Amino acid sequence: MNDIDQFLYLRIAKTFENQIVKEVIRLGDKLPSLRSICKQYDVSQSTAMQAYYYLESKFLIESKPKSGYYVSYSSKHYASIPEISKPGDFEGDQEDMENLIDKVYRQITNSKTTILSLSVPAPELLPIAKLNKAMVNALRSLPASGTAYEHIQGNVKLRRQIARLSHPIELSLTEDDLIITDGCMNAISYAMMAIAKPGDTIIVESPVYFGILQLAKILNLKVLELPTHPQTGIELEAFKRAVETKKISLCLLVSNFSNPLGSCMPNEHKKEMVNLIQKHNVPLIEDDIYGDVYFGLNRPKTCKTYDESGLVLWCNSISKTLAPGYRVGWIAPGKFKDQILKLKKCHSISSPTLSQEVIGSFLETGRYEHHLRKLRSTLQANSINFLNAVHESFPEDVKINRPEGGFVLWVELDKKINTVDLYEKAIKRNISIAPGSMFTLQKQFSNCMRLSYGMKWDATVAQSLKTLGMISKGLMGE
Amino acid sequence: MNDIDQFLYLRIAKTFENQIVKEVIRLGDKLPSLRSICKQYDVSQSTAMQAYYYLESKFLIESKPKSGYYVSYSSKHYASIPEISKPGDFEGDQEDMENLIDKVYRQITNSKTTILSLSVPAPELLPIAKLNKAMVNALRSLPASGTAYEHIQGNVKLRRQIARLSHPIELSLTEDDLIITDGCMNAISYAMMAIAKPGDTIIVESPVYFGILQLAKILNLKVLELPTHPQTGIELEAFKRAVETKKISLCLLVSNFSNPLGSCMPNEHKKEMVNLIQKHNVPLIEDDIYGDVYFGLNRPKTCKTYDESGLVLWCNSISKTLAPGYRVGWIAPGKFKDQILKLKKCHSISSPTLSQEVIGSFLETGRYEHHLRKLRSTLQANSINFLNAVHESFPEDVKINRPEGGFVLWVELDKKINTVDLYEKAIKRNISIAPGSMFTLQKQFSNCMRLSYGMKWDATVAQSLKTLGMISKGLMGE
Repeated sequence: MNDIDQFLYLRIAKTFENQIVKEVIRLGDKLPSLRSICKQYDVSQSTAMQAYYYLESKFLIESKPKSGYYVSYSSKHYASIPEISKPGDFEGDQEDMENLIDKVYRQITNSKTTILSLSVPAPELLPIAKLNKAMVNALRSLPASGTAYEHIQGNVKLRRQIARLSHPIELSLTEDDLIITDGCMNAISYAMMAIAKPGDTIIVESPVYFGILQLAKILNLKVLELPTHPQTGIELEAFKRAVETKKISLCLLVSNFSNPLGSCMPNEHKKEMVNLIQKHNVPLIEDDIYGDVYFGLNRPKTCKTYDESGLVLWCNSISKTLAPGYRVGWIAPGKFKDQILKLKKCHSISSPTLSQEVIGSFLETGRYEHHLRKLRSTLQANSINFLNAVHESFPEDVKINRPEGGFVLWVELDKKINTVDLYEKAIKRNISIAPGSMFTLQKQFSNCMRLSYGMKWDATVAQSLKTLGMISKGLMGE
Repeated sequence: MNDIDQFLYLRIAKTFENQIVKEVIRLGDKLPSLRSICKQYDVSQSTAMQAYYYLESKFLIESKPKSGYYVSYSSKHYASIPEISKPGDFEGDQEDMENLIDKVYRQITNSKTTILSLSVPAPELLPIAKLNKAMVNALRSLPASGTAYEHIQGNVKLRRQIARLSHPIELSLTEDDLIITDGCMNAISYAMMAIAKPGDTIIVESPVYFGILQLAKILNLKVLELPTHPQTGIELEAFKRAVETKKISLCLLVSNFSNPLGSCMPNEHKKEMVNLIQKHNVPLIEDDIYGDVYFGLNRPKTCKTYDESGLVLWCNSISKTLAPGYRVGWIAPGKFKDQILKLKKCHSISSPTLSQEVIGSFLETGRYEHHLRKLRSTLQANSINFLNAVHESFPEDVKINRPEGGFVLWVELDKKINTVDLYEKAIKRNISIAPGSMFTLQKQFSNCMRLSYGMKWDATVAQSLKTLGMISKGLMGE
């Protein structure tokens, strides 16, 4: 699907959305068949499907097997979205979280397990043959076949391509503004080390990716989790109050399609956030690792887009889109460039030469953008299948986020259900989920879980979600 | 050359050494031709040459073009070895050192420059075609062609092979005792972070590889440089005094063929050092990155060999022997394993999957040991050529270490000569050296330099050394 097609599907979808919301067409009405959409708008079958996927993802329509698509819009029908989180205004304990994380990942050893607990793309979704070809080319074209050290700052071609791909989100970077790192967490770790001293307090979203909590703890930083909205991300008012009343060293946000909540800060929020950090001189580490996996028309912008002070350190990688095992990430560190370069030099000298060249070529030839279009379309379809399956199989009061990108559903169940119990029962049936308490240092989210849909949708996955729903219903009854 | 040949050459060499030192054969006497050595001992030409190289490296014999080999032993004739270093008992300043290092490495941009300032193997010395083949095999054999995450601890095959190769130095490791890192500096950085807190004092050799000083500084550690002997390494008495009178958090040593001094701690010293650290409970980071590049009969042992307490963290990599650009290193962290694993997980999740598999297979097939034999023989020949060239061209009072392994000569010139001046004059003639003040935080070694012989010996290199000698003589006259 090319960019024009992508634009078309949204135009079609938006037209229907408008009519449905205004009840021009109503609950139960049948929609035109895909074939007639193709004819009417002169588009391909996949564009038509994309339009209907979009409407499905917003629960505006639903498909009935062998019958067609029907308007399903009704305020009653919607599964609610989860509550805004309300973490306490204190630092929580780590041990329980660590033990749970260790257990969940230690138990993924059975090849029969349906793994819904890892926020990574499954190999089936990756362009492996093309990457291998790029590797063979790199062995041929690099001096000394990549056995020599790369510059500390990283492969120039790769940095240039990252800069090029950042134009649509108006980052106006050049290769000189970027430093290659060994994955995104490595970028974040350098950023934290450059800015915060032991004992300092940092602000994060709540829930938050546990790797961030673990890193902060090992660097002896205090973590302040702030209320976060499942659609719009961190609550700006809470952030404002925190920086006005506490000594905050830095803030770390996953601004686009956060893990595990799936939230995406509206551009207006990003702009306001940048105003706030500039006013209070609080550096912001922006983890944008899911930003390229958007389901809408355009890639969402970043806080970095609005940053004129150099206070935003934009971190990213290809681990969620191309090859986690290549460990290629980067950072646009703004005014902290010298410190980050020095840290990288001291801690690892340089990043592996070959993998940087491979990813550099992959980006240069346009293969990356081609692959991303396919990946986004697959993940969007998955997200809808997951939403529908959870909606259908789980207890009625289930709350689900509406991801508009990324890899994860955040599911909130009745307070009576502890998802660690759900986990225990599920793993016995070879289904691995990520309980909500993995994503906080505080006592919260015990009735939540993260489900990753980064795999090929098939009958096993569908059945696993049904089974999870059944177990949840059982736990409700206990 | 196989192991039996290697044994043979040393037996031949030792026989001659004994006769020369006891003056059974005397200064000026002609030695048997290589051909007659081959006949007499029933060995190959290369074994015979190896024996004579050994004798040359100890300045016992010299070759005269078109004539043969002659005894050159005479106490007068020997260039002395450099003095034991005498660093002050205080912490020095960093800025001058940083500026000098930046300058030296920034100026290596001209492809015509003879680079004697980098302690790495030149591409010509690396088995690149075989590594490429192993990479193509890894793409075929690894699940998902290595795009998936490797375990945090690292590729099992690679760890098993490292354990196997450590048997000759009696490390008695299993794969479980090892953690793969992104190169040796990365291993050292985790080790330092695991053990020392900001403000702590650590002990290092003097001179010391500047990367260690930079890392210690960025972690806010105080550095105590101790007197170091150019042949036997750190002075044990000085170390003893330091740990008895000061609060020392850890010690870092390059026990075998140190960079830049070329010293190699005798096994007895290693044993004594381990006793001392155990008595005073001071963890020891042992950087053994040059240990495989020995010129003698056996690989020298390590401090880790004698460690029963788990206080020694043995760090190593293939950056000096196979492929610096692959960034594959490892650590046997003793009792600090849990901390190091946790640090690695937080700072970079896992190391690149493909390169670990490539190096793992390379070690498994025995190609590594085959390659090492060749590399050692080349470097030994280089070291002798360098020694002779410096000896012949430099001012008479030049002092040179006698490397029995590794990549570097440490050259001490008359106090009148500042090697930063020498550097400035040399770089104008496209020769890059590493001035001694790069390897200390204190005011010392201004008349020293490090010359790396990790390249193919040829007329350009020979001429560069002559030019350096000439410039030095000029600086003496000024």
